[in-house]
Amino acid sequence: MKCRVCRGPAVIDLPRHNANFCVEHFLRLCRNQVAKAIEDFSMLSPGDRVLVAVSGGKDSLALWDLLVELGYRADGLYLGLGIGEYSDVSGTYARAFAEERNLTLQVLDLRDTYGYDVPTAAAATRRVPCSACGMSKRHLFDRAAIDGGYDVVATGHNLDDEAAVLYGNTLHWDLEHLARQYPVLPARPGFPKKVKPLVRLTEREMAAYCVLRGIDYQVEECPMAAGNTHLGYKAQLNALEATSPGTKAAFVLGFWDRMSPVVAGLRAAADEPPDATQRCVRCGAPTLAEACAFCRLVETSAAHAPVPVPTPRRRGRR
Amino acid sequence: MKCRVCRGPAVIDLPRHNANFCVEHFLRLCRNQVAKAIEDFSMLSPGDRVLVAVSGGKDSLALWDLLVELGYRADGLYLGLGIGEYSDVSGTYARAFAEERNLTLQVLDLRDTYGYDVPTAAAATRRVPCSACGMSKRHLFDRAAIDGGYDVVATGHNLDDEAAVLYGNTLHWDLEHLARQYPVLPARPGFPKKVKPLVRLTEREMAAYCVLRGIDYQVEECPMAAGNTHLGYKAQLNALEATSPGTKAAFVLGFWDRMSPVVAGLRAAADEPPDATQRCVRCGAPTLAEACAFCRLVETSAAHAPVPVPTPRRRGRR
Repeated sequence: MKCRVCRGPAVIDLPRHNANFCVEHFLRLCRNQVAKAIEDFSMLSPGDRVLVAVSGGKDSLALWDLLVELGYRADGLYLGLGIGEYSDVSGTYARAFAEERNLTLQVLDLRDTYGYDVPTAAAATRRVPCSACGMSKRHLFDRAAIDGGYDVVATGHNLDDEAAVLYGNTLHWDLEHLARQYPVLPARPGFPKKVKPLVRLTEREMAAYCVLRGIDYQVEECPMAAGNTHLGYKAQLNALEATSPGTKAAFVLGFWDRMSPVVAGLRAAADEPPDATQRCVRCGAPTLAEACAFCRLVETSAAHAPVPVPTPRRRGRR
Repeated sequence: MKCRVCRGPAVIDLPRHNANFCVEHFLRLCRNQVAKAIEDFSMLSPGDRVLVAVSGGKDSLALWDLLVELGYRADGLYLGLGIGEYSDVSGTYARAFAEERNLTLQVLDLRDTYGYDVPTAAAATRRVPCSACGMSKRHLFDRAAIDGGYDVVATGHNLDDEAAVLYGNTLHWDLEHLARQYPVLPARPGFPKKVKPLVRLTEREMAAYCVLRGIDYQVEECPMAAGNTHLGYKAQLNALEATSPGTKAAFVLGFWDRMSPVVAGLRAAADEPPDATQRCVRCGAPTLAEACAFCRLVETSAAHAPVPVPTPRRRGRR
């Protein structure tokens, strides 16, 4: 197995590129794919101050590493979600990554600061954990970026993540979410610009990137997410990809290339702030209600007795 | 297992309706679903003369039966495609169905009339058999309808067929085909109106309909289609449906309900005849070239030596 670029010994095969790569040229490919995504979608400008949403998993640490490699000024923010051992270990990896590279990592713990954690919020709201978790993360990353004067929030959503979300939105023809699914969301009053520079790279490529760059990361899946629909969609897309390499990239990138212009009018409407003049009475975030959804979640969850966390399961056991 | 309607003994469970049905009420459900499709999409008017595209399989025979049951004047056209024993048996079922019910069935044999068959056309054009077959069928059904003064051609495409085609078009974001995928195509110069009244019913429901109505049909799959991408998509959709009953119907009907209006502009453009004034010098069909694609296929294929046909395989063996 030889590298397509230098004919030296290859360490990874990428069927969707119909090629193999050595360490050096695989890492270069990853950087090039991120640079291409950033350019194609006007994600970042050279002097931008970037806040990376860091979970301690492969995607967010690879993203942070890649942005620094590409010369961007990127700090990290790690949220302690309180998902037992899973969160403890994730935080350790995030801190170690930043310390070893002398990068700035902010840490914000939900229970210390707001008096709740994700398992408790899920129980208190009687909704799936990913709902309370996602909402908390969006609110707190938005707020940290605005308060810290960052130009943009970067998240580690990769091609597999985007493909699975697009698959679900498409199976249901959920036009509102289809219109919003784009790798860049522009800034608007009270909200920072948000970008997803890893959308041209797969989960497997990000895992290989971390291994080859010597980045230690949380390899467990979040125990709260086990068995969710999103993971089922990923399995289906992997089956398609195995039969026909490149299917995932064609699905996601083809959507943005050809379908997004068709739903552009819908996206413009979806991007409009609901009421730019109304602000949450507690935190000042834009909201349609007196208090924003996050502040209401905090109120409900902080009053609830803490609940236990499922034990993490290793990937592949499910 | 009791019928949802009458609480009598049920013969079939329909997970997507979360209900079981007896013979009488299952057959009524099928008629109602066809009537609803016809009404929702303005497929047929009461006095219309309908030409049913009859293959001898469950879908086309059930369609013919349902249209007659619903009071429409429907004749059939069976094309002898020359796919060996598969075609011979299919033709026998089509003829028997018509004779037993005293219905009018036209029969047109490709080799007798045009000097070729589908396996030979596939070999001569070096394309997948479904390509030459589909093109031949579209041309000949169009022509028979125009020549016979029929108002509309009805085909037996069911929910699974539409779902698989939509799935493929969506995975590739093939906007041209997405814009054209609709259960009604209006008449335009040289082309009849075309409708798909079975789009609200599944393959399994159509097989059950035939069994319960005593309709004998070709149960083999076309030996030329074995292993094609379309069948792979059907398998993936069946896996989704098993996990989440109703997924296929939501995907297809949701597309027409919510996405079709978004791509309506594209559809209008796709429906435009390429050049309504230009006609094939041989057969008079609308075309962009001197001779239409069908007449060119006939010329290429009739000059080619006949090729053998694969042996039919039973469903479930693949």
